[in-house]
Amino acid sequence: MNAQPAAPSSAAPAFVHDGFAYGCDYNPEQWSPEVWTEDVALMRQAGVDLVAINIFGWSQLEPRPGEYDFTALDTVIELLHANGIRVNLGTGTSSPPPWLSTLHPEILPVAEDGTTRYPGGRQAWCPSSPVFREHALALVEKVAERYGNHPAIALWHVSNELGCHNALCYDEDTAAAFRRWLQDRYGTIDSLNAAWGTSFWSQRYGAWAEISTPKVTLSSRNPGQVVDFHRFSSDELLDYYKSELAVLRRHSTVAVTTNFMVTSHIRNLNYWSWAPEVDVVANDHYLDHRLDDPTTELSFAADLTRGLAGGKPWLLMEQSTGAVNWQPYNLAKAPGQMTRNSLTHVARGADAICFFQWRASQQGSEKFHSALVPHAGTDTVLWREVVSLGATLDRLAEITGTTVVADAAILFSWETWWAGDGESRPSQAVRYIDQVLAAYTALHELGVTVDIVSPDADLGGYRLVVAPNLYLVSDAQAANINDYIAAGGHALVTFFSGIVDEDDRVRLGGYPGAFRDTLGIRVEEFLPLLPGRQVALDSGGTASLWTERLRLAGAEAIAGYVDGPLPGTPAVTRNTHGDGTAWYVATALEPRSYRDLMRTIAQGARVTALGPESDGSIEVVRRVDADRSYLFVINHGEEEITVPASGQELVTGSAVSPVVRVPAGAVRVIREDSAA
Amino acid sequence: MNAQPAAPSSAAPAFVHDGFAYGCDYNPEQWSPEVWTEDVALMRQAGVDLVAINIFGWSQLEPRPGEYDFTALDTVIELLHANGIRVNLGTGTSSPPPWLSTLHPEILPVAEDGTTRYPGGRQAWCPSSPVFREHALALVEKVAERYGNHPAIALWHVSNELGCHNALCYDEDTAAAFRRWLQDRYGTIDSLNAAWGTSFWSQRYGAWAEISTPKVTLSSRNPGQVVDFHRFSSDELLDYYKSELAVLRRHSTVAVTTNFMVTSHIRNLNYWSWAPEVDVVANDHYLDHRLDDPTTELSFAADLTRGLAGGKPWLLMEQSTGAVNWQPYNLAKAPGQMTRNSLTHVARGADAICFFQWRASQQGSEKFHSALVPHAGTDTVLWREVVSLGATLDRLAEITGTTVVADAAILFSWETWWAGDGESRPSQAVRYIDQVLAAYTALHELGVTVDIVSPDADLGGYRLVVAPNLYLVSDAQAANINDYIAAGGHALVTFFSGIVDEDDRVRLGGYPGAFRDTLGIRVEEFLPLLPGRQVALDSGGTASLWTERLRLAGAEAIAGYVDGPLPGTPAVTRNTHGDGTAWYVATALEPRSYRDLMRTIAQGARVTALGPESDGSIEVVRRVDADRSYLFVINHGEEEITVPASGQELVTGSAVSPVVRVPAGAVRVIREDSAA
Amino acid sequence: MNAQPAAPSSAAPAFVHDGFAYGCDYNPEQWSPEVWTEDVALMRQAGVDLVAINIFGWSQLEPRPGEYDFTALDTVIELLHANGIRVNLGTGTSSPPPWLSTLHPEILPVAEDGTTRYPGGRQAWCPSSPVFREHALALVEKVAERYGNHPAIALWHVSNELGCHNALCYDEDTAAAFRRWLQDRYGTIDSLNAAWGTSFWSQRYGAWAEISTPKVTLSSRNPGQVVDFHRFSSDELLDYYKSELAVLRRHSTVAVTTNFMVTSHIRNLNYWSWAPEVDVVANDHYLDHRLDDPTTELSFAADLTRGLAGGKPWLLMEQSTGAVNWQPYNLAKAPGQMTRNSLTHVARGADAICFFQWRASQQGSEKFHSALVPHAGTDTVLWREVVSLGATLDRLAEITGTTVVADAAILFSWETWWAGDGESRPSQAVRYIDQVLAAYTALHELGVTVDIVSPDADLGGYRLVVAPNLYLVSDAQAANINDYIAAGGHALVTFFSGIVDEDDRVRLGGYPGAFRDTLGIRVEEFLPLLPGRQVALDSGGTASLWTERLRLAGAEAIAGYVDGPLPGTPAVTRNTHGDGTAWYVATALEPRSYRDLMRTIAQGARVTALGPESDGSIEVVRRVDADRSYLFVINHGEEEITVPASGQELVTGSAVSPVVRVPAGAVRVIREDSAA
Repeated sequence: MNAQPAAPSSAAPAFVHDGFAYGCDYNPEQWSPEVWTEDVALMRQAGVDLVAINIFGWSQLEPRPGEYDFTALDTVIELLHANGIRVNLGTGTSSPPPWLSTLHPEILPVAEDGTTRYPGGRQAWCPSSPVFREHALALVEKVAERYGNHPAIALWHVSNELGCHNALCYDEDTAAAFRRWLQDRYGTIDSLNAAWGTSFWSQRYGAWAEISTPKVTLSSRNPGQVVDFHRFSSDELLDYYKSELAVLRRHSTVAVTTNFMVTSHIRNLNYWSWAPEVDVVANDHYLDHRLDDPTTELSFAADLTRGLAGGKPWLLMEQSTGAVNWQPYNLAKAPGQMTRNSLTHVARGADAICFFQWRASQQGSEKFHSALVPHAGTDTVLWREVVSLGATLDRLAEITGTTVVADAAILFSWETWWAGDGESRPSQAVRYIDQVLAAYTALHELGVTVDIVSPDADLGGYRLVVAPNLYLVSDAQAANINDYIAAGGHALVTFFSGIVDEDDRVRLGGYPGAFRDTLGIRVEEFLPLLPGRQVALDSGGTASLWTERLRLAGAEAIAGYVDGPLPGTPAVTRNTHGDGTAWYVATALEPRSYRDLMRTIAQGARVTALGPESDGSIEVVRRVDADRSYLFVINHGEEEITVPASGQELVTGSAVSPVVRVPAGAVRVIREDSAA
Repeated sequence: MNAQPAAPSSAAPAFVHDGFAYGCDYNPEQWSPEVWTEDVALMRQAGVDLVAINIFGWSQLEPRPGEYDFTALDTVIELLHANGIRVNLGTGTSSPPPWLSTLHPEILPVAEDGTTRYPGGRQAWCPSSPVFREHALALVEKVAERYGNHPAIALWHVSNELGCHNALCYDEDTAAAFRRWLQDRYGTIDSLNAAWGTSFWSQRYGAWAEISTPKVTLSSRNPGQVVDFHRFSSDELLDYYKSELAVLRRHSTVAVTTNFMVTSHIRNLNYWSWAPEVDVVANDHYLDHRLDDPTTELSFAADLTRGLAGGKPWLLMEQSTGAVNWQPYNLAKAPGQMTRNSLTHVARGADAICFFQWRASQQGSEKFHSALVPHAGTDTVLWREVVSLGATLDRLAEITGTTVVADAAILFSWETWWAGDGESRPSQAVRYIDQVLAAYTALHELGVTVDIVSPDADLGGYRLVVAPNLYLVSDAQAANINDYIAAGGHALVTFFSGIVDEDDRVRLGGYPGAFRDTLGIRVEEFLPLLPGRQVALDSGGTASLWTERLRLAGAEAIAGYVDGPLPGTPAVTRNTHGDGTAWYVATALEPRSYRDLMRTIAQGARVTALGPESDGSIEVVRRVDADRSYLFVINHGEEEITVPASGQELVTGSAVSPVVRVPAGAVRVIREDSAA
Repeated sequence: MNAQPAAPSSAAPAFVHDGFAYGCDYNPEQWSPEVWTEDVALMRQAGVDLVAINIFGWSQLEPRPGEYDFTALDTVIELLHANGIRVNLGTGTSSPPPWLSTLHPEILPVAEDGTTRYPGGRQAWCPSSPVFREHALALVEKVAERYGNHPAIALWHVSNELGCHNALCYDEDTAAAFRRWLQDRYGTIDSLNAAWGTSFWSQRYGAWAEISTPKVTLSSRNPGQVVDFHRFSSDELLDYYKSELAVLRRHSTVAVTTNFMVTSHIRNLNYWSWAPEVDVVANDHYLDHRLDDPTTELSFAADLTRGLAGGKPWLLMEQSTGAVNWQPYNLAKAPGQMTRNSLTHVARGADAICFFQWRASQQGSEKFHSALVPHAGTDTVLWREVVSLGATLDRLAEITGTTVVADAAILFSWETWWAGDGESRPSQAVRYIDQVLAAYTALHELGVTVDIVSPDADLGGYRLVVAPNLYLVSDAQAANINDYIAAGGHALVTFFSGIVDEDDRVRLGGYPGAFRDTLGIRVEEFLPLLPGRQVALDSGGTASLWTERLRLAGAEAIAGYVDGPLPGTPAVTRNTHGDGTAWYVATALEPRSYRDLMRTIAQGARVTALGPESDGSIEVVRRVDADRSYLFVINHGEEEITVPASGQELVTGSAVSPVVRVPAGAVRVIREDSAA
């Protein structure tokens, strides 16, 4: 396993906690003070020991411009502190109070068609607004000054889910900031013209002032402008984060973080560049029932979060005890599922399990979002599981600080997500995240633990690296991957990878330009398939969405098409490159075919499968440190399973050997003898 | 049967007519005067005796600002009067002339994204615009002055389909009016903050001036603001209606109404508050072929209109002879269907049968809307049916003034429609109107006549009250329903009822908070199902969309789930509460299962089914007064049916006993012997 | 066969070329000058002899306001000229440079909701903007001055795909221009009021200044305003074209054209009025894989383009060698398909075969659009086919100048497309272009060559004329068609034809008003069907979408409905009118039923089928002149076919008699003996 984003320097403050942090967002301002007393008693009952407060505090803390009132927040902090509950203190800036947008409507977000987005929800501010920043930082100053040295404060929580709604803004403040960012990146307007290919469609710029954000056009937009706007927008919010961070650093030595949203339906921030700026990586994750397989996506997101943390433990800052409110159909969780989801995060590196939110709201947009204390109160199945999960985490406390073992990696790139899913491309049915999840699923079902790393990461420690649909790669990234293979690595590259450079400029001479020589192939043309159409392979499998006019140029054909537009043409190839082996898949394999191929590749690469092969319902993951080893066995299925393991099982407290029996829906965690 | 909205005081003018009014909108301005003469002759031939004119008269009456021309309208009124055709006189304000929006573009509607909606269609005015009101009321003044005492005028028709398009407006005039309305409602800003739960997401208001309409946001909107904006918008148009009414009252003693749009695809006006302000309730209704069962929805809408009329006779102000033009696929009516639809309205309390419009337009948006005189002229199947229907209504004239008998009621609430179908809720697949229509359909197929009444109505006279998905109930409404049951009533409450109070604030302690004790249950959690998924019940039925983690707390389980997320959990319960019986259904029963359950409940409540059980194709309804009784038998099916009845059949003029035979597609109306 | 739009007067310059022009758009500004040299060598290798340049040249030619730089363009023109490659010189105005929209944002397009459409794509200019015109014409002046007499210039290419994106603009400049256009058309406001039927919905205008473009409304828009706005918008861009033309004429005697977009997904320009203004008709056509049958649509578009050219040869100005980039799923072409598509255009009258574009772009929105030189270079299947096609065209060179033989015609009307597909109509499922293509497909599958002509065309030479869904016909058009029949013609009219006059005013007295007497029928009412519903005919066929309450009034019933809403009613009728025969189809026949009926009709009209009947996979077309005759046989199928033909086959160079064998996927072209 390998770190990819540099973790903050060791001089940076660290978040330390005794055992697993167990907690939640806590919004006492929604309740009367009498309830607060009950809250704290219940928190102690459940073992909750870290609560995030002041996340949406602004309108309460600063009810009128420049007039601050910390009375209630003081009380809550003292109450928590007196009860030994640590505070994850929000800077309170996530949503401005109504008076600010009334006084300064210029802070409001503007959509790509030039229309305004109004207050009434949350996050109604433009990231580039100097007026917003001035007021927000003034609040951070007050909060940091007041609580920067308070012993209850365990962690700073900057804003909330930055960029969840407002990442892309199209107002004039943003356009000005975008121009400054472009000047920094390109230096000269000629350099920008070259990068964006403005000789196409008469788009050549003569001066910086002519450039704006990619607002809505009659035809498709300049793709270079679009991808740079994504880069800028991620950087712009990161710059905002850093401006809050700087204030906090002046007043406090407590670790600082902000809650990422690593999930398959949000894509606007490049967390590879964000991760080095937080003292500990924290993530919010919710099961997404719009997906075919929400549970596997959870594992993927947890592995990607670990990748952002450079392999170190990370914090699950938000998840739900049951249903959320913002999906079209908000499914609840079955009994045990919350525990299973939580321990899946732990298995994959989380050292904190937190939730949104403590007590289900009576009002507001999220009143039907589940919570630790449901509307029905504590005489509920849900509350009993909350208490039980707290106890289970206590029994697992010794695991904190250990790290996850993986010898396979999937390369993941937000830049590809932005560029490859753009407006004018071969097939709108090919979506980056789908193809990444398809690759992950194949490995996951084989029982293989996977790191999700940046294309810039040091790949040297991996036996197998998979690059699914890695459309955009810089020259350095291409070299990193090709060098890894030449040095003896095994790699699988899938279709529509290595197509463009970092300016979204096609690499000429035959696809995939960045990997053509390494793969020993040359692709002349893409032949996407209409959705619903399948092609058969001579290996027995099936595929869909995409085929390619591919010629061997050194590689051997492992499978070819039987039908479709290219019968007889290779669909899967293998090439020896230097000391390594480079596989290519030119189509979107159906899941079973994908798993079959991945099994062959993984075996060839001598990748260890910790778990048995399954339909994804069994997960086996190991966390270790120098001295110890813990095996997590998660059973999502409806039947009891048996997995080889010897040692002390920590959830039930019983010794197991030579196998552990895991009931349907349960998780078992074994302190392994072998590591002793 | 019970009245719910107070009918206007007996001092208010009444609409009186000899027998059924038979009529239509008449737009002579679209035709040359020679056509008018033919029109009137044909009206006499068909028996048309009430025509609505001047509905869209403004641009003709006031061709230039302040310059009025009544010549053509005078001529038309005199022509109608001379021929004994009564006039339902429009105030003419429904759509302003182009000169007004050119001079005053500030009257134009503004959408939620701040963009303007332009002239070129109809109703392009903002209900809160003082400039629009000033000009519109000036026109009303002129019209009322001129025709207020004209003997031809039988009824005033204020504007037209108020709020059909423009009910929700987001401009600054509206924001100011909304703030005034909120000040009236809440008195203090603290009270508003409490009602809207503004402690959530940092939305706390410090001053009234900070509040605006719920314009488009990046995330979901404050639900309290949204539901209050609906309340305000309904009240604001009602206030406008009352301003026209006040002018008319100063000049005329003729009854005043406006045409409601009680139908399942329009929901912006709370007609429970409107009904008391009209001298007679009038409704427009069109078959909606986007629904699975347009005919049952027609019966529902007619019953709801009767509810608005407090049980008294009402006027069907518009329907179509055949196809409309505004649905995606505008189906025509089969021969006999127009008659059947019309007599269904009569059976359910209508004392007037009117249409849009007299003569099919040659031009404009509605030229493909059917009419009494089609484009093809009078040598048509359609015209012959128009003439025939006029004659049939003449034969039924003695029925006018009688009222409908029902001993079951469904509670209906526009406030629930607004709040329960909001942005952030457990399942977007659960729609209020669907669930109301499902309950109605079950009773309808059992042959039970139903009143549709307000949750505030006096329920004392009903044997059975059904509250389908009654999400929002005020404390008073909850008490009204619970007291009805305690006093011996039978009630069926269905899932997602009684969840919030009138501020959309969740009632805590277990769902459904408003009815938990009465129902003898306690629901811990909602478990919506993905669309398409079904669950089986141990009673043999099936259900979909929704399940609940329900515990009995006094009630007995009548049916439980066999599969799905909650096998073994009760799905249908019955509780004895006081002297009454309270049923609960925690899921969306499929139609057959719903009908089976409803049969059991109705029998237990000793509800009378007038008709035989059917698939909805047979409707039997009775209208009575102190001395007389009329039985309507409507056969939508393709086979002749036989229903017990004795008396004089009025459509055919023959005596029937002991049964009446009703041919396929026909309606029979029996003056019953038994009532004599 | 007949000409319909008058071709430009013989005094106008003509485009003359030796043999077929073979070429492409060429954008050297996207590449370094070293590449240019390779380009020209490859062009010569492929036989490319006409290239369109300077299409998007503005930002390069005028990098700053009023500062021109022709260096690069000079070099490219000289290079091409030196290599014998002729130039199709763009005026360069298709997309303005960023500095122009920065200086003058008032030139930007405005959408129907009043929001702006921004630069960043292409064609971001309002056709009515005087500022845009001033700057664009200044550029044209410079370009025409400089190159007007250059011997390399074979053709002027005005702008590019005019109106592709910006045809409908809603800003104030456009509103002012629209008012001027309306004053020209109507003279008086009363006349406009009559034409638009403004007595409906109180829309009567008192002054021209009150009129605007049909911006977005709350309800449906005035259909007269909408159809006139379409007419105006087409005329407005034509006026713009003519302003460029006038500049060119002052400086050059070279022929002028602009590339039309005759295709089924673009409909904003009425090319019947455009065609007389170009010196040679040129069209862009791309296979549209969103259609069920893209290949038949190609033939239709080619036939319609020939119709626009008055039967004379025309230029295929753009097509693709393979996939495009702007459809959701951009399918590639199979080997041979590019050749087959190209020769289909030739068979149907094209004397030039050109492509977008020479070399696949590395950057910009269209980088995944195929080209003559693909990203993979010249060692590709695609490049080899490009070279082969050039050689094939050389072998066919003698065919240029000949014209196509057809004795059937389909009437086609952009005005009907605009009016008939409007907002408020009987069925949104009935789309004009679908019904036209259905009629075309029926004839196409019978092997019949068809001219596509205007309803104003001289129809005298045709044996059969088909008017599918010809909703809007002027009185003159109606007379033209009725007179053609009376004089002995055979015609088929299909449902929803002849419904309105040119003001979209319904023709009263029974549908279809314009053709009722000729057809000997009278339709009382339209009865659309819900999508998915089918009706059976007593002739054995099936139909969908539409039925009509139709009465015979002289005609005989050929087929009637067996089921559906109108069992027993005639669905297909035939009438003798004067010396001719008039058929009517009142429903949308399924393809097989349509072909069966069309076979009967065509045989009755003694229409010659050149080809065998097929599923559309065989096309046989003849081009002739006074002395010669060429038979094209195109085989889209997967089996070799044999078609009677005698003469010299030009593609393979072999003599054939009495049949020609055409391999799967191939095209054969026979210089026929019989014509000698």
